[in-house]
Amino acid sequence: MKIISKTIKLRSKKYLEFIDLTDLVKEFVSESKINNGSVLIYSKHTTMAIRINEKERGIVEDFVSFINKLLPKNAYYRHNDLTVRTENLVCDPGASDCMNGHSHCLHLLLGSSETIPINKSKLILGLFQRIFAIELDCGRNREVVIQIIGK
Amino acid sequence: MKIISKTIKLRSKKYLEFIDLTDLVKEFVSESKINNGSVLIYSKHTTMAIRINEKERGIVEDFVSFINKLLPKNAYYRHNDLTVRTENLVCDPGASDCMNGHSHCLHLLLGSSETIPINKSKLILGLFQRIFAIELDCGRNREVVIQIIGK
Amino acid sequence: MKIISKTIKLRSKKYLEFIDLTDLVKEFVSESKINNGSVLIYSKHTTMAIRINEKERGIVEDFVSFINKLLPKNAYYRHNDLTVRTENLVCDPGASDCMNGHSHCLHLLLGSSETIPINKSKLILGLFQRIFAIELDCGRNREVVIQIIGK
Repeated sequence: MKIISKTIKLRSKKYLEFIDLTDLVKEFVSESKINNGSVLIYSKHTTMAIRINEKERGIVEDFVSFINKLLPKNAYYRHNDLTVRTENLVCDPGASDCMNGHSHCLHLLLGSSETIPINKSKLILGLFQRIFAIELDCGRNREVVIQIIGK
Repeated sequence: MKIISKTIKLRSKKYLEFIDLTDLVKEFVSESKINNGSVLIYSKHTTMAIRINEKERGIVEDFVSFINKLLPKNAYYRHNDLTVRTENLVCDPGASDCMNGHSHCLHLLLGSSETIPINKSKLILGLFQRIFAIELDCGRNREVVIQIIGK
Repeated sequence: MKIISKTIKLRSKKYLEFIDLTDLVKEFVSESKINNGSVLIYSKHTTMAIRINEKERGIVEDFVSFINKLLPKNAYYRHNDLTVRTENLVCDPGASDCMNGHSHCLHLLLGSSETIPINKSKLILGLFQRIFAIELDCGRNREVVIQIIGK
């Protein structure tokens, strides 16, 4: 039984950017020589999600429209209200601002990780499945952990 | 340490059908003779989710009403707009159409898998917890992977 | 390779309470002497979610406002309609009532568990990441399973 981990450093460009990690994860699985097991793709951030979906520009645009209506950036968020907020008044290193109340609500919906099975040394992905890190804040430095457990 | 996987083939009937996989998963856990570990239930599709919830007809109807308002099927989705779309213009085998922009947005919210602990050769499920594959597109052929890791 | 599990008993106080489990999980990881692996935090309930986010009072208030609009408690839910409902007409032990149609819809969005990697005997958590059990029903008795797999 082996457990192998790796931290990927990313620089996201903008809100709701979908960063495709599929080839990186496939390569890491292939190098690991692990035949059978699973891989965890894990975001180290409270405003970056990991999700599996199809890679098609229209889907990203549809999701952006949907989320802009569901959680408008410019609505009132207590998290953004520096007249009442007292906790964690330090932004993440690399962040351009702290006005991300909408990002935290969205992150609670989307989640921090995905787990994908490995069989015969290959990631089990369906025809259109791709692995994305989704930026829920503005463009910033990010870290994603990839961990393989198997034999 | 053992790792055992199995692919289940399903035929879903309609949008937002909840397909109960609980007995199938329980049986696979029991046959595996694994005493201690966890089981991953993983959808190989970008428009089928895996979720745990109570099995009660009202919950399914409430969820259908909620989602029909949240992500109306007949709204404009760029993913459905064949006048602008250029990528992945091939439907999944078994799909009746590609007009599933709402399905992709919904899948981003719901996720691709669940992981459940196993203890004393039994799935740890609370009183009302059941495991569902939820169809987010029209009725079609589907594959779900069940993978047990443990000893 | 070791697999160690523990069930935590909680008493939640109210709807959308965020119960911080981070210190409990960290302590269990530290006691386990597992150097490398992952930990699964799993809710045994269909109306309690496990999520990772920042711990800041404003975020909880923003999420409560958002969810109260998205899934109003007092809207019509078939799950709550005892004139038509026939299944599972027994409440969870410790529940004050069964009128939780909104809770089930919300649980389908939020999910039942999180998995976090362990490296060098430490939970891999980013600067602001905290692990929460989120109560989606009224205050009641709850169980959360923590399971570590690793070596």
